Amino acid sequence: MKQTSLQLAEFVGGTLKGRRDVVLSGVASLKNAGPADLTYAEEKFQGEARNSSAGCLFVSSGEFPQQTVVIVTNPKLAFARAAAVLLRRDSVATFIHPPEVVEAGAAIGAGSSIGAGCTIGEGVRIGEGCTLHPRVTIYPNVEIGNNVIIHAGAVIGADGFGFVRDRDVYVKFPQVGKVVIEDDVEIGANTCIDRGSLETTFIRRGAKLDNLIQIAHNVDIGEHTVIAAQTGISGSSTVGDHSVLGGQVGIGEHARLDANTIIGGQGGVLNGKHVRGGEVLWGTPVRPLKEFLEQQAHLSRLPKWIAEIRQKLFGEAKG
Amino acid sequence: MKQTSLQLAEFVGGTLKGRRDVVLSGVASLKNAGPADLTYAEEKFQGEARNSSAGCLFVSSGEFPQQTVVIVTNPKLAFARAAAVLLRRDSVATFIHPPEVVEAGAAIGAGSSIGAGCTIGEGVRIGEGCTLHPRVTIYPNVEIGNNVIIHAGAVIGADGFGFVRDRDVYVKFPQVGKVVIEDDVEIGANTCIDRGSLETTFIRRGAKLDNLIQIAHNVDIGEHTVIAAQTGISGSSTVGDHSVLGGQVGIGEHARLDANTIIGGQGGVLNGKHVRGGEVLWGTPVRPLKEFLEQQAHLSRLPKWIAEIRQKLFGEAKG
Amino acid sequence: MKQTSLQLAEFVGGTLKGRRDVVLSGVASLKNAGPADLTYAEEKFQGEARNSSAGCLFVSSGEFPQQTVVIVTNPKLAFARAAAVLLRRDSVATFIHPPEVVEAGAAIGAGSSIGAGCTIGEGVRIGEGCTLHPRVTIYPNVEIGNNVIIHAGAVIGADGFGFVRDRDVYVKFPQVGKVVIEDDVEIGANTCIDRGSLETTFIRRGAKLDNLIQIAHNVDIGEHTVIAAQTGISGSSTVGDHSVLGGQVGIGEHARLDANTIIGGQGGVLNGKHVRGGEVLWGTPVRPLKEFLEQQAHLSRLPKWIAEIRQKLFGEAKG
Repeated sequence: MKQTSLQLAEFVGGTLKGRRDVVLSGVASLKNAGPADLTYAEEKFQGEARNSSAGCLFVSSGEFPQQTVVIVTNPKLAFARAAAVLLRRDSVATFIHPPEVVEAGAAIGAGSSIGAGCTIGEGVRIGEGCTLHPRVTIYPNVEIGNNVIIHAGAVIGADGFGFVRDRDVYVKFPQVGKVVIEDDVEIGANTCIDRGSLETTFIRRGAKLDNLIQIAHNVDIGEHTVIAAQTGISGSSTVGDHSVLGGQVGIGEHARLDANTIIGGQGGVLNGKHVRGGEVLWGTPVRPLKEFLEQQAHLSRLPKWIAEIRQKLFGEAKG
Repeated sequence: MKQTSLQLAEFVGGTLKGRRDVVLSGVASLKNAGPADLTYAEEKFQGEARNSSAGCLFVSSGEFPQQTVVIVTNPKLAFARAAAVLLRRDSVATFIHPPEVVEAGAAIGAGSSIGAGCTIGEGVRIGEGCTLHPRVTIYPNVEIGNNVIIHAGAVIGADGFGFVRDRDVYVKFPQVGKVVIEDDVEIGANTCIDRGSLETTFIRRGAKLDNLIQIAHNVDIGEHTVIAAQTGISGSSTVGDHSVLGGQVGIGEHARLDANTIIGGQGGVLNGKHVRGGEVLWGTPVRPLKEFLEQQAHLSRLPKWIAEIRQKLFGEAKG
Repeated sequence: MKQTSLQLAEFVGGTLKGRRDVVLSGVASLKNAGPADLTYAEEKFQGEARNSSAGCLFVSSGEFPQQTVVIVTNPKLAFARAAAVLLRRDSVATFIHPPEVVEAGAAIGAGSSIGAGCTIGEGVRIGEGCTLHPRVTIYPNVEIGNNVIIHAGAVIGADGFGFVRDRDVYVKFPQVGKVVIEDDVEIGANTCIDRGSLETTFIRRGAKLDNLIQIAHNVDIGEHTVIAAQTGISGSSTVGDHSVLGGQVGIGEHARLDANTIIGGQGGVLNGKHVRGGEVLWGTPVRPLKEFLEQQAHLSRLPKWIAEIRQKLFGEAKG
């Protein structure tokens, strides 16, 4: 949706310097932007900004006599918000792209778009303004809120992985619970979110999940929590609001992470572990970052130290 | 398929106490179950059980004067088995959901159901009573047994990852082997099982694979082996019967795990390693759990110990 | 495409011994090969080779009086190259398998084959001789070179995972860059390659990516680099030419790996790390293989050593 430089300045609450009638239709990087593009520059890129051909730049300060700029406190955030307006599709009609399969009893809200090759199971409810990219599968009875984005290949509501051992054989435990995905969630490509076994799997409001993530049955992901690619959360674990999980993190079953937990990439949380809020954790099993770094440093120096100590104590040349 | 309380009691070999004519049509948790639902209670939840509105409860002991209960040795297992009957679709006709693509020479057994958007390659054989959820891809010449469940997005029979180096360039090694999936296997969403290069990749009877798992070419997964999400098994490795692999485990090439191996989450097995049966292993590279825990404990205390020792020996305040 | 033993010998530049008119139509292992199959034998399998029923064998030396063999320096490489000829489809017409969706402005080159259930976005360009297996999703404006193979379920060009924090809420950063996949690349099943945010994600000529890999926005994968399954590369990182990454490797953001880097399975590279070319690295965080092995060895012996040292110094029986 095209916007003038003045409209964008007003939208982000910034101060316009330069032309008020520049028509912007897209966004681009400082380097690539042309006369119809909006871009932004962090403080340290002011030099590059002065050479940019962008129709309009969001900056935090400085003089740009040759260019049309908008002065805002946080240019990157303002750019992201303005980009959402510029890139918005004009239409608000619901659009379902053939071939797709929508089963009986499924309901899709106004302004939602369903990509080609999607399958929407019986009784699924999808809210307003959602985008399902191609080849998303929604199993029956999943509930999806408003303004949810789901990328290609994601699978929502498949059976959880639950079996009861009968001597040497595994008997399937029923997987008949639900999945509830709240408003403003984004789910990456080929990510899997299993349905609850008898209860419900929750992805709370504003949570962002990257690609190839595994969310097991009965998991509860808190509001505005961010999870990087290839992380896996095992059954019945909860991740508190405003948490950040790096890539390839593994969380065991029945673990409980309080709000504001941060776990570094490839970290591992044991079954049943309770992580107190506000911690920054690394390693497998996870430990506080400071402790992790100290242990790594000691591990590095260990061969040298042990040799020294053993030499002194036992007169040995080698460990 | 609806069942009376008496039918279910007889099916699981339990003792019915209460009404014999309660009609059950579904399953639910203790908390959520209503008058048409079956549920179960472990010993420790007998209090909750007495407050349940379930039409019928499976329990291991106790008095429930107000309710219809079935006394069985293992309520959870009995519940899982009864649920399979209650949730069974009545129809036994083969059902292929359009749009799907079934190539020439493919054969699909009685009572099997093929979800929307599946593609079934040339010469594929699928047995009886199988469920392929939507968007499963089966490459040519894959053989699937009876009562196999495959979740959405799984890819069975893609080319293995094999190349021969020709100076600085990689030449594709032919990937023309097969995949054989035996009876009663379950395969999770977006899991990938590659075909053999010249030989066959096997998933043996009763094995259960979670979501987003990678099984490389020529791998052999034993009977009734359970593999959690995001685990990867490299080419030509074998995993013995009745093994349990945690999530995000990585197994190198040409490794051999004997029967009854247990590997904890994120464990790593090196190329060519032979793991003796019955071991419980953790870490990367894997070591016996007891050893892993001891090493972790020592690693934690290392900074303190090294400081103490060096202080005593060298009079240093810091390592 | 059927070939005679003489044609294959000439094609690989080898010396034919035996019949020149054997007609070969397939490839198989030493053990399984029949009279119409080509196979090969490494030096150590010469015994098995003499018992093979293959129509033609590639070997590096030896006498095979009963069989038709081709003597070549590298039988496995020659076999891989000959297999490519034997297994080539005769047709060179472009083939698009219904049902699929090709959006406006997409262009598909001669001799390329698009599998069932693929979706090809607006403005996508696919070169000549490519194979897209079923259910591949290509988002808009992705560019794919010649002779590229993409396996089922792969997703190319989904939005990168980029957000700007606005107090407690995440605002989507625009993801409007491109993906460029150069000639001779192979991409595994269910692998995800995200589009650039404002710039371009590159997969350079001849790179080979296994299944379930995550390539984030703005990443650049070098020429003839090989990446094993379930590895993840975070945003804006670069991997140099001729590198080899094992399975389940994790690379942080803005990391830079020079050419000829080798990283062992499950290795982890921290954000912003610069890895010098030609290194062989293991562990999380990665360190040189020699150092990693030495540290592991010391960690194993640590409980015993610490006990000995503390006994001697402090007279303690236990640590």
